[in-house]
Amino acid sequence: MFSYTHGGEIYDKKVSLDFSVNTNPFGMPEGVRKILIDSVDLYDRYPDDYYRELKTALAKEHSLDDDELICANGASDMIYRLCEVIRPGKALLCAPTFIEYEQALKAVGCEIAYYNLKEENDFALQEDYLIHLTPDIHMVFLCNPSNPIGNLVDKKLLIKVAEKCQELGIVLVVDECFLDFVKEAESLICHRKRYPGLFILKAFTKFYALAGLRLGYGVCSGKELMEELLRHTPSWNVSLPAQLAGVEALKDMAYREKTYKWIESEREYLSLGLSALGFKVYPSQGNFLLFHGKEGLYEELLKRGILIRECKNYRQLGPGYYRAAVKAREDNEQLLKVIGEILGKDAI
Amino acid sequence: MFSYTHGGEIYDKKVSLDFSVNTNPFGMPEGVRKILIDSVDLYDRYPDDYYRELKTALAKEHSLDDDELICANGASDMIYRLCEVIRPGKALLCAPTFIEYEQALKAVGCEIAYYNLKEENDFALQEDYLIHLTPDIHMVFLCNPSNPIGNLVDKKLLIKVAEKCQELGIVLVVDECFLDFVKEAESLICHRKRYPGLFILKAFTKFYALAGLRLGYGVCSGKELMEELLRHTPSWNVSLPAQLAGVEALKDMAYREKTYKWIESEREYLSLGLSALGFKVYPSQGNFLLFHGKEGLYEELLKRGILIRECKNYRQLGPGYYRAAVKAREDNEQLLKVIGEILGKDAI
Repeated sequence: MFSYTHGGEIYDKKVSLDFSVNTNPFGMPEGVRKILIDSVDLYDRYPDDYYRELKTALAKEHSLDDDELICANGASDMIYRLCEVIRPGKALLCAPTFIEYEQALKAVGCEIAYYNLKEENDFALQEDYLIHLTPDIHMVFLCNPSNPIGNLVDKKLLIKVAEKCQELGIVLVVDECFLDFVKEAESLICHRKRYPGLFILKAFTKFYALAGLRLGYGVCSGKELMEELLRHTPSWNVSLPAQLAGVEALKDMAYREKTYKWIESEREYLSLGLSALGFKVYPSQGNFLLFHGKEGLYEELLKRGILIRECKNYRQLGPGYYRAAVKAREDNEQLLKVIGEILGKDAI
Repeated sequence: MFSYTHGGEIYDKKVSLDFSVNTNPFGMPEGVRKILIDSVDLYDRYPDDYYRELKTALAKEHSLDDDELICANGASDMIYRLCEVIRPGKALLCAPTFIEYEQALKAVGCEIAYYNLKEENDFALQEDYLIHLTPDIHMVFLCNPSNPIGNLVDKKLLIKVAEKCQELGIVLVVDECFLDFVKEAESLICHRKRYPGLFILKAFTKFYALAGLRLGYGVCSGKELMEELLRHTPSWNVSLPAQLAGVEALKDMAYREKTYKWIESEREYLSLGLSALGFKVYPSQGNFLLFHGKEGLYEELLKRGILIRECKNYRQLGPGYYRAAVKAREDNEQLLKVIGEILGKDAI
């Protein structure tokens, strides 16, 4: 009856270690935890419909004007609203990519063209992507870093894509939900004024481990699109706990620094460990790794209470492809140890 | 820059007593408060996308099949999704009514016809409403009890409306968000099987004082509409705190009983008090009162830190119409006392 397309089947399976969702293993920042507990008696109030404090904090964070920013009940909510508002006749997606785009586009009856990312290129976007940006395309989703691979789109290519989309009137949605994990990453936000058709999608879900609260946002300089999105947004769309958590999360600089330190060392540790066990591990700048090898690993791990993301339902992937979140050292060690046991090999 | 259409301007005005929003003055049930605090460390997880525990609890509450139920990020979210999915060419609204319907319909470019509720009938729906249900109408919103009046639609008339809508293929949305305040109220839920085009809207917002968390739901036996709504729903649309709170709220029978006791006595107290001060007070079964009298009362009260809902932006109302929530005795007393001072009269 229930079909999971995103991982995270913790509500119907016995799971002691969940590597299928990619949230920060430090959990939410301590200040967020505190304000959520301290504010519980305020939850009988309606949230500020204009989420003014949160907007001010985000505008400061990214040096934005207020009207270049829109918040949502998670990034998924924004993806669906974008599709409802634009109602594209035809859209271009990468294969593989985050499955939510396809679902949202199909809900509005959109035809979808696919650009196939190739294994021989480690599933990285290539220059020939530009050829697929044709006048019949109305909307494009690009995920940077990509999901489920974690690689970054080449910066020069990304600008060429933005240029061509602008030229052809294509709405370009760049999903930067995992970009926060890349220290000193260059968000496309700084180029927003040049490309009013560019919509940059971000979220608190992963980096600040606030998946349960639902808080995403979008940045765009195109006034018409932003006004139309607002017109299609229900009142009080961003809950009060989400607003409070967002404001608080942005204050915690130490949390960011410890996250950068952790991801750099742990991603390498897990990647080397999986390689040593004989898996092909694809280059990732995100907080997760795509790897390929033994079929049936998902089921074997699940028997042992460990959940990874099986990737066989992604286009261009198939049996033997898996995604695992980078977690804390002892969890990563445990994953490698158990995989080693399954394979009859020693983990490094 | 900001325009409030719903009341609740507590985020930009100095307010010590807010009568403009109609939430239960007991605040959230104690069990909800406790579980929200105890569960804070789980909020780094994604919510169950199928909100299974909540669904089970609601299905039991209303004796429903699982597939007759859909939850949302507040009732407003459901109103917008209904309009996005149905995309009606023409809809019929009462005037006055909850402003969100009009906003959601206009977002999808819908033409709106109005049925004017008349002051001489105390703004109650009359039999001639049926004449306005014509084949060119695709969608109808009816609020029961109505907002901003609080009166119930006559039961026999409501069934005639459901019959005629079914006959003409009109989607009938009956908003019962305030019906929980009416003890032994008859929800249209028991008639859902006869009318697959009937969608009943409910929420935890008001009765359980969970406005900040955003939790609404809809009941409908029409499989096609429900499937289409699900297809248009983003993943993880109902936050984890909202799911936990909903399950817990439904358990608290004592909270319901004390709410029924309070509303019966306090609504009468406030109504008599306002009448004694010279206002015309309209009959209400809800937890709020519409009244009419001195112009400028909204501003006078606001100067004294008390916020009521000014109703001049509602169709068919105008200057001198106000809505006030029924609150706890001492707050109601305070409101009457301050109005008495403004008018130079003694409150009862």
